[in-house]
Amino acid sequence: MSSIPGLVEDEISSFFESSPPLKNMEEIVEKLNGFIDSSSQGGGRRIVCVTSGGTTVPLEQRCVRYIDNFSSGNRGAASTENFVKAGYAVIFLYRRGTCQPYCRSLPDDPFLECFEFPDKTNIQVHASHLEAVKMAVMDQQAAVAEARLLKLPFSTIYEYLQMLRLIAMALKDVGPCSMFYLAAAVSDFYVPWNSMTEHKIESGSGPLDIRLAQVPKMLSILRTNWAPKAFCISFKLETDSKILIEKATKALRKYKVHAVVANELSTRKEEVVVVSSNGNVVVRCDPDKPESIVEDNLIRLIVDRHSTYIKESHT
Amino acid sequence: MSSIPGLVEDEISSFFESSPPLKNMEEIVEKLNGFIDSSSQGGGRRIVCVTSGGTTVPLEQRCVRYIDNFSSGNRGAASTENFVKAGYAVIFLYRRGTCQPYCRSLPDDPFLECFEFPDKTNIQVHASHLEAVKMAVMDQQAAVAEARLLKLPFSTIYEYLQMLRLIAMALKDVGPCSMFYLAAAVSDFYVPWNSMTEHKIESGSGPLDIRLAQVPKMLSILRTNWAPKAFCISFKLETDSKILIEKATKALRKYKVHAVVANELSTRKEEVVVVSSNGNVVVRCDPDKPESIVEDNLIRLIVDRHSTYIKESHT
Repeated sequence: MSSIPGLVEDEISSFFESSPPLKNMEEIVEKLNGFIDSSSQGGGRRIVCVTSGGTTVPLEQRCVRYIDNFSSGNRGAASTENFVKAGYAVIFLYRRGTCQPYCRSLPDDPFLECFEFPDKTNIQVHASHLEAVKMAVMDQQAAVAEARLLKLPFSTIYEYLQMLRLIAMALKDVGPCSMFYLAAAVSDFYVPWNSMTEHKIESGSGPLDIRLAQVPKMLSILRTNWAPKAFCISFKLETDSKILIEKATKALRKYKVHAVVANELSTRKEEVVVVSSNGNVVVRCDPDKPESIVEDNLIRLIVDRHSTYIKESHT
Repeated sequence: MSSIPGLVEDEISSFFESSPPLKNMEEIVEKLNGFIDSSSQGGGRRIVCVTSGGTTVPLEQRCVRYIDNFSSGNRGAASTENFVKAGYAVIFLYRRGTCQPYCRSLPDDPFLECFEFPDKTNIQVHASHLEAVKMAVMDQQAAVAEARLLKLPFSTIYEYLQMLRLIAMALKDVGPCSMFYLAAAVSDFYVPWNSMTEHKIESGSGPLDIRLAQVPKMLSILRTNWAPKAFCISFKLETDSKILIEKATKALRKYKVHAVVANELSTRKEEVVVVSSNGNVVVRCDPDKPESIVEDNLIRLIVDRHSTYIKESHT
């Protein structure tokens, strides 16, 4: 594999050096190692890191204002459930407050809508929400108890990228059986921590001009240095369908990932295009099954591709 | 009451004219009128609109990226519970995904931590979370059922300001018995909808410069036009304690609100200062009661002031 240009590497080093350090790094590393140990027992189980939700970019060091990328986290949550079903152990690296695996069918306001205490001692679930609550509680707890699901939350782009690096390091020995499924909406722009104002930006004196720097492209270093043997899927979201496939194809070549999942904002729940060196495959929900979601077929395809990749790595 | 300068009024008109219209306006108006009718039955019940959480400012019309103001919504949620306890009907205008009244004691991940299905049919709450779940379900549902709580969610600054205006119009007849308790963290800056790019901002071509315009100061028009008879409390949050009281005092004079609650980011859970024409009052939690929160004493003070205001309005 070709190494990445020195310039990118410099940018990335300086990004990490100037980042505020992770507060609970030791705890995260301990959780990660414990999870990877338990889930590899018996040998050969595949492990995927699913990233989900948007990253925030603080505009002030004592942060009141920040820039955010829109992402409900629905794709990451649904994909996680499908990976667990396919036998994977999933490290779910998610934005705090976004959609959780097994919780997609809960109403927006579950404590107002799902439950009642008919006699002040026994809680009951309304019949209309029973299946959704059972899934959120039983299926989720089973996945965690069986070391098939580890949930790690982040908020800022600094936390996200530091945690992604920790996960890549921890998964190094899993080699081709590991996968990165990078569904998070990572900001392209940020305000370097050192050039950031400490206090809240003052209002009241005309328009505000903000200059944002580009976030260095971590995908390159993930592929070449952090986890060169892992199977790697990235995502491309656009609002303009005209440029979507072109941009996904560019990303495939530039970052040398194994596939790029291209999705357009307005149709992303019905259809995605998997762009890879094998050509482009359109993936949709099953029209005959009303409960089918696009992730059912997407994860089936990705898992197949991963199987082929593992076989080829061993030969 | 003096009228506001024509310039501000022009800015506000042009803000609303260029805002994307509320999608469910009729539904909101219907809910509001129903709630105000039910809660005023028997006459004389006080109604407060509590705003809570931060507003988002879209940077693109088909929004992927936006600027956000940090606010957990804890203050608004805790204040709402205290207003209900004091006999008020509360219109809780909150940012989607922020802290909800009666839910502050739930763990971050309640479906993973609070419940179990011991025999696959009966749900149970773990003893350690029983009180928190009971409060979230029973107290919250009772408040809604008794028309003491109406929850209305928003995300963008456009939604927030249009909904605030609707609420002010709907509360006009409640006169001095109505209150606005404006705890939401409203953005000072925005990108005018008309000057916004339609599609996702392209990355990959150097740094990004963003020019943000000031959001017109809606507090002026709320006080003078929308709800001139309502009791009105605004908030000032700063990270720099040196300028906090000065800025709160300025806001008191400029917007002619009845009090400004001044809070500093790092100490906001222990202490606030209520700045009004009666002088500044420091409000803290009760040091003897471990479960006491600053909102218990803050709402007691605000309710007293509101009582005095209602009496004076009738003489």
